[in-house]
This record gives sequence, C-alpha cells and structure tokens, in this order.
Amino acid sequence: MRTQVGIIGAGPAGLMLSHLLHLAGIESIIIENRSRDYIEHRIRAGLIEQWATDMLIETGVGERMQREAMFHDGNHLCFNGETHHLNFKDLVGKGITIYGQQEVVKDLVAQRLKDGGQIIFEVEDTAVHDFGTDKPSITFRKDGKDQRIDCDFIAGCDGFHGICRPSFPEGTLTFYDREYPFGWLGILTDSPPPDHELIYSYHDRGFALYTMRSPTISRLYVQVDHDEDVNNWPDDRIWEELHIRLQGTRKLQEGKILQKGVTPMRSFVCEPMQTGRLFLAGDAAHIVPPTGAKGMNLALADVRMLSRALSAYYKSHKTDLLEGYSKTCLERVWKGQRFSWWMTQIFHVFPNEVPFDRRRQLAELDYIVNSRAAATSLAENYAGLPIV
Amino acid sequence: MRTQVGIIGAGPAGLMLSHLLHLAGIESIIIENRSRDYIEHRIRAGLIEQWATDMLIETGVGERMQREAMFHDGNHLCFNGETHHLNFKDLVGKGITIYGQQEVVKDLVAQRLKDGGQIIFEVEDTAVHDFGTDKPSITFRKDGKDQRIDCDFIAGCDGFHGICRPSFPEGTLTFYDREYPFGWLGILTDSPPPDHELIYSYHDRGFALYTMRSPTISRLYVQVDHDEDVNNWPDDRIWEELHIRLQGTRKLQEGKILQKGVTPMRSFVCEPMQTGRLFLAGDAAHIVPPTGAKGMNLALADVRMLSRALSAYYKSHKTDLLEGYSKTCLERVWKGQRFSWWMTQIFHVFPNEVPFDRRRQLAELDYIVNSRAAATSLAENYAGLPIV
Repeated sequence: MRTQVGIIGAGPAGLMLSHLLHLAGIESIIIENRSRDYIEHRIRAGLIEQWATDMLIETGVGERMQREAMFHDGNHLCFNGETHHLNFKDLVGKGITIYGQQEVVKDLVAQRLKDGGQIIFEVEDTAVHDFGTDKPSITFRKDGKDQRIDCDFIAGCDGFHGICRPSFPEGTLTFYDREYPFGWLGILTDSPPPDHELIYSYHDRGFALYTMRSPTISRLYVQVDHDEDVNNWPDDRIWEELHIRLQGTRKLQEGKILQKGVTPMRSFVCEPMQTGRLFLAGDAAHIVPPTGAKGMNLALADVRMLSRALSAYYKSHKTDLLEGYSKTCLERVWKGQRFSWWMTQIFHVFPNEVPFDRRRQLAELDYIVNSRAAATSLAENYAGLPIV
Repeated sequence: MRTQVGIIGAGPAGLMLSHLLHLAGIESIIIENRSRDYIEHRIRAGLIEQWATDMLIETGVGERMQREAMFHDGNHLCFNGETHHLNFKDLVGKGITIYGQQEVVKDLVAQRLKDGGQIIFEVEDTAVHDFGTDKPSITFRKDGKDQRIDCDFIAGCDGFHGICRPSFPEGTLTFYDREYPFGWLGILTDSPPPDHELIYSYHDRGFALYTMRSPTISRLYVQVDHDEDVNNWPDDRIWEELHIRLQGTRKLQEGKILQKGVTPMRSFVCEPMQTGRLFLAGDAAHIVPPTGAKGMNLALADVRMLSRALSAYYKSHKTDLLEGYSKTCLERVWKGQRFSWWMTQIFHVFPNEVPFDRRRQLAELDYIVNSRAAATSLAENYAGLPIV
C-alpha cells in the first residue's frame, strides 16, 4: 500500500488528523490495533473546549454533537458546604461541551468512511521504519497476512502504550513524569447528575467530581488511594462517599452503576514530539491527570497543528511548520500540564500534606470565587486557551 | 499607669495602631523591649501596598515617604534569559511603594511623640494578665523598677517571638506551620539596583531577587540552603551568583556590602488571633515567606481592623467588630499566605523536585506574562487586595 500520511491509532487524534488532511486534499491511511466496536465504546474523556467544539462543527463532523451534546456556560466549585458558580461565558466568552470521546470517535469514523477514507482495524505487530529518511514505512499484520504501507510521513497517534514513542532513536527523547499519590474511582450510572453543570468538590475525605454523559447518565468520581482495589468499593460505599462529599449542596439521585474503575493520576511529557518524518500526537507524547479535562483537547490541538504543517508542505513545499511542530505543540502542552497540575493540587488531599496546606487550598478556592482575575484565569484555561 | 489600650511592641503594627487610636480619640501606651535607636534601624520589609501607602498619607504620617520613597508601577519577572515587565498600574490601577519598614517606624515614632503619645522603650519581663476579664493589665520592669499598666484592652504586637501569643490559655490556639527547605542570603549594598523596579529571577541555580532601598542602595537576595552558614559566602561568591542569576538581562553594578545575612523561609498562622481582651496583630499571629512582600502589609491591615473595632466599641459600645476581629483578619491573612506560598513555589528550586516541576514552573511564568488574567491576578495580590 502507498499513501501520503500513515497514521497509527484510531483515537480522536488519529481520526481527526485523517479528517483534516482529507479536507486539505492529503491522503492518509489509519491502522488500529482494536476493533471498530471497541474504539467506538471506549469510555474516556468527555469535555471539549470551545475552539475544538467549533473545529468539529466547522469541519462538518459536529452535527450529531450539536444535537446530542450538553453545552455548559461554566462549572461549580464546592467547598465549606457551599457551591460557587463560575460562568465561563461571562468571564471569557467561551463555554464547554459535554460529549463523550467515544461519540467524537463514532462521528469521525463515520465521516472518514463516508469520504472514502481507509481505516484498517484489528492489526497486529505494527512497526515503523526508515522515518529518518524521506521514504518511511509502516508494517503490520492483518488477518494473519504481513502488510506494509509506504508513505511520506508517519503520525504516531497510538497513545501512551503505543509503539511510536519507543521507536525514537535511543537518547533522543527526554521524559518529564510525575505520578500523584492518589487515583480516581469513577462510576458511570443510570441516574441524572446532581447539577446540569459539573461540580468540583473539595472535602477533607478527598476530592469528588460530579459530571455526566447526558441529562440521565452521570459520571461520578471520588479520590481514592493510588493503588486502590476496586473490590474495596461495593456500590453502597461509593454512594455514601459521593453523598458526603457533595456536602448537602445538591440532591444526588442513586441509580444502577453501569461501569466502575480506578484511574491512576499521572503527568507525562516527552520532548521532542518528532524525529525525522515521525510525529507524535496526543497521549503518545503527553498524559495529564483528568482534573483539568485537557487530555482529548491537547490531542486535538496537536493534530490541528500537524495537519496545517503537512498542508503547508504539500501545498508549497514549506517545511518550517513541520520543523516547528514539536516546539509549537509543547508550548500548549506545558500550559495544559500546568493547569492540570494546578487543578489537581488545589482539590486533592495529599498523604504528606500538613494542615497549613489544607488551609492554603481553601484560601485559593475562596480567592478564585471572589476575584474576577482569578476566576478568569481558571475559565480561560478550562474553556480552552487561544489556539494558534 | 492607666490607659485604654495597652500595646506591646513598637514595630509597624503597634505604632500604627497607637496612631490610628489617637486619631479616633482613644488613649494607648506602647511598651517595647528594644531601644528607640534599635527599632528605627532594624532592616526588615520594604514594600508597601497601595492601600497602606494611601493610609499612611491620609493619616498624616506619609509626608517623608512621599518625598523619599520610590513609587513603582510594576515589577519584572526574569526567566529563560529574558525579563518581562508586569505593569500593575495598567492591570489593576495600583502601584507599590519602596520604603523601608524602619523608615515607617521612624515616621510613626516621631508622630506619636509629637502627638503626646507614650512609648516606653527598653522594658523587661513583660507579662499580660486578666485579659479574660474586663480589667486586663500589663506588668513589666523599666530601669529596675516594676511597673504596671491597667487598661481595657491589650494589643499583642510583639512579633513572632513575643510573649502575647504564648500567654493564650492552653489549648485555645491552633497553629499552621510550613518551613521551606531553603533560605535567602540577603545583602544591602552601596550600589544602584540593576533596574529601578524589582526583578524576580528564576534560575536553575536558584531564585534571586533584585530590589532596593533607594536609587543608590540595593537589597539583593539569592536562594541558599535552609541552614546555610553566611561564612560560606564571601563577597566575591555572592556577586558571582547575583551576576549569573540576573542572566545578562541587566548590568549589575557591584558596591560595598553594608550588611549580610541568611533569612529562613517560613509560613505560620495561629488561629484565632484573640482571646478575651487580648488581640494579636502582625507577626505575633502570622509569618509569611518574604517572596510576596506581604509581612508588614498584613500587620498594617490587622491594626487597621483592630483600631476600627476599638473605635466602634468606645464610640457606641458595639462589640461585633471586636468579636469578628480574628475572623476578618484571617481571611486576608490566608489570602496573603496563599499568595506568598504561590510566589515561593513558582520561583524556587526545591530539593525534592522532579524535572517535571521545573518545566511546570516555567510554564506558569510563561503563562503569567502571556495572559492578562494571570498577570492581573498576580498584580492585584502584589499591589494589595481590596481592604474592607
């Protein structure tokens, strides 16, 4: 097989890249380890920044989102037994969109196939070759048969555990890593969320987040130990903890728990995000803790930049955007990392904290809800910093 | 002796309180361990928030300050070899005043004496009594003679090592404390500062601060170990480090070093700040690391509130402000603590940090200088949050 851009991974990054390249008249093929059914039902992120919402709509893949998503003007911070509303629309003129990553994936897969795009699912033994030359290639096995894609460029959109990052020449990457001493126990439940917008709750027993997939399906989280065994959390215990941490500020309706799991919390960045003709995007290059809801948004920002850089190359043989890809992306990535770290550190109980730290966290929350500048700073990051 | 308010400590808090009470027609006596000469030459803080500058002027003790102080519109953040100016005047309509704490003390002592106020210097063995009743008293020894002041209220403005806080009934105070794993080596030099405004510098070798007492006297600091021996720092080494950490962004003129010392860095709050008729103000109740320049400003805010509460009591026997004194002050104190912690944590090298943290700090600095909201948040804290 031969294409212009070989894309590894059919998550939001790989699919959006393929879609944007198509709109620019550039061919691509996506290969993906998992099945179509798997990626279309994998529950991950569910919050889209304003610019990314706009991009989905402007590029023709936002129709179902506009019909089915929830559009929020802001969110709520809960502490000391009270909730405080931050109105992002009022503060920065931008809102956020609640729409599951798997729904974005479904819409993009459908659009790619409608546009004649090629996505090869359930491949094995993927490897990348010769990306230090101008004739890179990708090999993989599909239905027991060895296959090969010759291409001009390779996009590594294959996630944190993918094969692209480890394929960089030894010694060319620097890793920045921070693990947090806690995790999130998350449930998906067949019950309405306690508020139509998100509630971030600060509590001495630990952080809790009340979010949703729809007006009738809640996504609820409580801070737990880093290596917590989900079996320690029967449904009753989860609901009890969710009630306590909501501090009586809303009524929390219980429902059937459809899914339950513990997410570890990690910050990770690799630098640079490119070598020769191999470019990383999304989780392949960086991971954020979910507190700031930045994971999918950073992935979409990466491929927006990569598609522009590739367009410039194919249109006018300009290589400056391609050469600057990593640097441009990392500026936004580090701002996303900073914000995610900041949101994480103000809301969580830390095992080695001193009582001073708890008071300092409360003072920060109190400051945010009483200072327009501080609230604006949170809002502009949460709803999405301006994009180049 | 008999007075209405007995004040322990002739620092900025005690002197300003006595001055404000005098303006409200309330009598006070100040007692102080040290000599007048000592307190008028003790080098401490040197940065005054806008509202406090205004208060000094409005209450008639700002004349020399208006003539001799330096008035700054903003400050500079230095990182990655560049300085970035934050214009507080432009961002929040407020500036800052550079005027040594010892100068404020001189002006207040002169004014109190001119107004017939009583300050008893060089007292020993001070103790406070019966503040749980409405007949408190202060005892001390002066020139070998035991003395006693009967009063209605006692103001403990006697600093972190004073006797008032330890005099609270056992078990009534909660302490919040954080020590930082570094200190500041500070010098006072007979040479002009590298810029007419402050420069906060972020460097891999540690933080440095370039400030001043006047256009010809600099106050310069470098981050050093917590328990650093000042003897490890001959003059040449200090200048070398100051040059390196200024990153070539300004010319640093060397001069005679007039003073040299290591300041440990600490955050401390005690709650509440009152018991019966004994009220704490300033360092007696809270300590901030010097990074945010909040120490003297919080002390002045405390006594502003205390003088109002006492005025309301004497004018109309209202006790609500007195009863709410601690709560009102602590709200501002904790915001000052948060800001001081935040300024400290973004600028310093921490012994247990991981490389991720250094990048995250740089991302925060980069964010501040590129976001009006973030710059405004820094500015409104630095130039002084609105005061009740």
